[in-house]
Amino acid sequence: VARGTSDHAAIYLRYLIEIELGIPAGLAAPSVTTIYGAEVRWGGGLVIAVSQSGRSPDLVAVMEAATRSGATTITIANDPASPLAAAARHVIDCRAGEERAVAATKSYVAQLAAGVAFVAAVAGDTGLSAGLDSMPDVLDRTLATAAATVTDGAPIVDAFAGSERSIVLSRGFDFPTALETALKLKETGRLFAEGYSSADFSHGPVVLTEPGVPILAIRPDGRPGPAVDEAIEAARRAGSEPWVVGSANLAGGAGLAGGDPAKILRLPLPDDLPEPLSPMATILPGQLLAEAVSRRRGYDPDAPPGLRKVTLTR
Amino acid sequence: VARGTSDHAAIYLRYLIEIELGIPAGLAAPSVTTIYGAEVRWGGGLVIAVSQSGRSPDLVAVMEAATRSGATTITIANDPASPLAAAARHVIDCRAGEERAVAATKSYVAQLAAGVAFVAAVAGDTGLSAGLDSMPDVLDRTLATAAATVTDGAPIVDAFAGSERSIVLSRGFDFPTALETALKLKETGRLFAEGYSSADFSHGPVVLTEPGVPILAIRPDGRPGPAVDEAIEAARRAGSEPWVVGSANLAGGAGLAGGDPAKILRLPLPDDLPEPLSPMATILPGQLLAEAVSRRRGYDPDAPPGLRKVTLTR
Repeated sequence: VARGTSDHAAIYLRYLIEIELGIPAGLAAPSVTTIYGAEVRWGGGLVIAVSQSGRSPDLVAVMEAATRSGATTITIANDPASPLAAAARHVIDCRAGEERAVAATKSYVAQLAAGVAFVAAVAGDTGLSAGLDSMPDVLDRTLATAAATVTDGAPIVDAFAGSERSIVLSRGFDFPTALETALKLKETGRLFAEGYSSADFSHGPVVLTEPGVPILAIRPDGRPGPAVDEAIEAARRAGSEPWVVGSANLAGGAGLAGGDPAKILRLPLPDDLPEPLSPMATILPGQLLAEAVSRRRGYDPDAPPGLRKVTLTR
Repeated sequence: VARGTSDHAAIYLRYLIEIELGIPAGLAAPSVTTIYGAEVRWGGGLVIAVSQSGRSPDLVAVMEAATRSGATTITIANDPASPLAAAARHVIDCRAGEERAVAATKSYVAQLAAGVAFVAAVAGDTGLSAGLDSMPDVLDRTLATAAATVTDGAPIVDAFAGSERSIVLSRGFDFPTALETALKLKETGRLFAEGYSSADFSHGPVVLTEPGVPILAIRPDGRPGPAVDEAIEAARRAGSEPWVVGSANLAGGAGLAGGDPAKILRLPLPDDLPEPLSPMATILPGQLLAEAVSRRRGYDPDAPPGLRKVTLTR
């Protein structure tokens, strides 16, 4: 149960729960409760809310309904004293510290970490816990590497700031990374940036590709890699050579061979990093890109016009 | 379990199942099965695949896994002899006739109808069955009304054909209508058209609104109406007066007062039409708009370059 940036953390959590625990998971549609007043029979299930502020009234209404229907309920939020936390039986406190910008960034990474900690505890030892312990160092190094490349005046910033339309692609655990990168570009840069799974891209949006439309592909080392390579090749055939975020281990697979090496950002991810943990790192270049694009276009990335930190929706 | 246009029919079906039956429902992520090889425990549940061709190998793999795990499985497809139908225990044949264009249109409406027929049978008499019987007439009249307005040279066609960026909004049962209208505009018109729920719009994409970006709002008579009105007002404040698709009964509520009457398309929907049935009608103006925009931009709407009828994804 989530909206906006937290919705992308919830999508990540759904992949994590299905893949690591084998339990079917899906995203709630709040209007089913808040607009249609349907009593959904969540009893026997687990309902998890994810929110930065914990103050969106529609999410609170859904969690109250889920608790009422007998579900086990957990709120993952940055404020354990928030109404959304009060509406759930259990709370996981993100402890990310105050999110001073309207556009959420560090709290997104903290939501992913909270999800991993929860699933690792349920699954028993799968290497996720040890990997999670290494993440502060990994993220420090990733941020330093990304900040050296994605900076004012860098070609990638010029490319995205100079186009009203762009596309962000990935698959699997990094599909939410693509969605979140696109949302940050939209919110702070005010450009049409759309995130797609590499599979859905082939089902339609591939026709939007043309030389003036920059594309960013998050290319995981793990199992979705070849699927993302295919999307990179499709984009290249349509005339737009994608920018690629990958790891230092990224082999020159089909998707990268023939590409422009200057368009590939290699993050210093450890060889043995479990794939589910990499989205905490792969979002960082996207967040930096959105910040730089926003400034380049003359906006304040911390306070996009027309947005509020707590969004009130029916 | 679905992709592309059928994904939007699946989202519609999820609303229908949760609201009419109170059973939690969600969309599958095929990569969980096809890329990560996870064995999700769907046993005891119902897994429904929706597809025009019934031939996407990734959807077949998910349905085989679901059947194997003990789930009750149903395929809703336009070809009861397709591999996706063979992978399920039960088949609902859409009988829409051959979809001659690559961009699916009549088969989408037939998928919604198949979903209503199924849920009405499970729910017992809720008025849905009687309403469904009236739909052929309602759709004939809706198509005639929409075709008289959304036609070559009409202002709405000029507006969308003349911009590289546009937004389609709705909420609840018509949220998939917004997504599907946007996808058709993308596929056949090759423009960045993005579909949003009116709630998610307020969480970010509202900042994309500006005078040169046309907006289409599907404004249901039913309970989500006021929420869509709020999005219409937000768009108007940002400088883009939305085009509105509503019914002949559409009252001049907050969202419409002050708008341009020439931008409101009133469909001849019966007063007593159950709200869940209206998406079969409200998609028609969007399909006609995409066709006209595609021609106006010099493309063949029946054969968008770069797309195939059966999409092969990992």
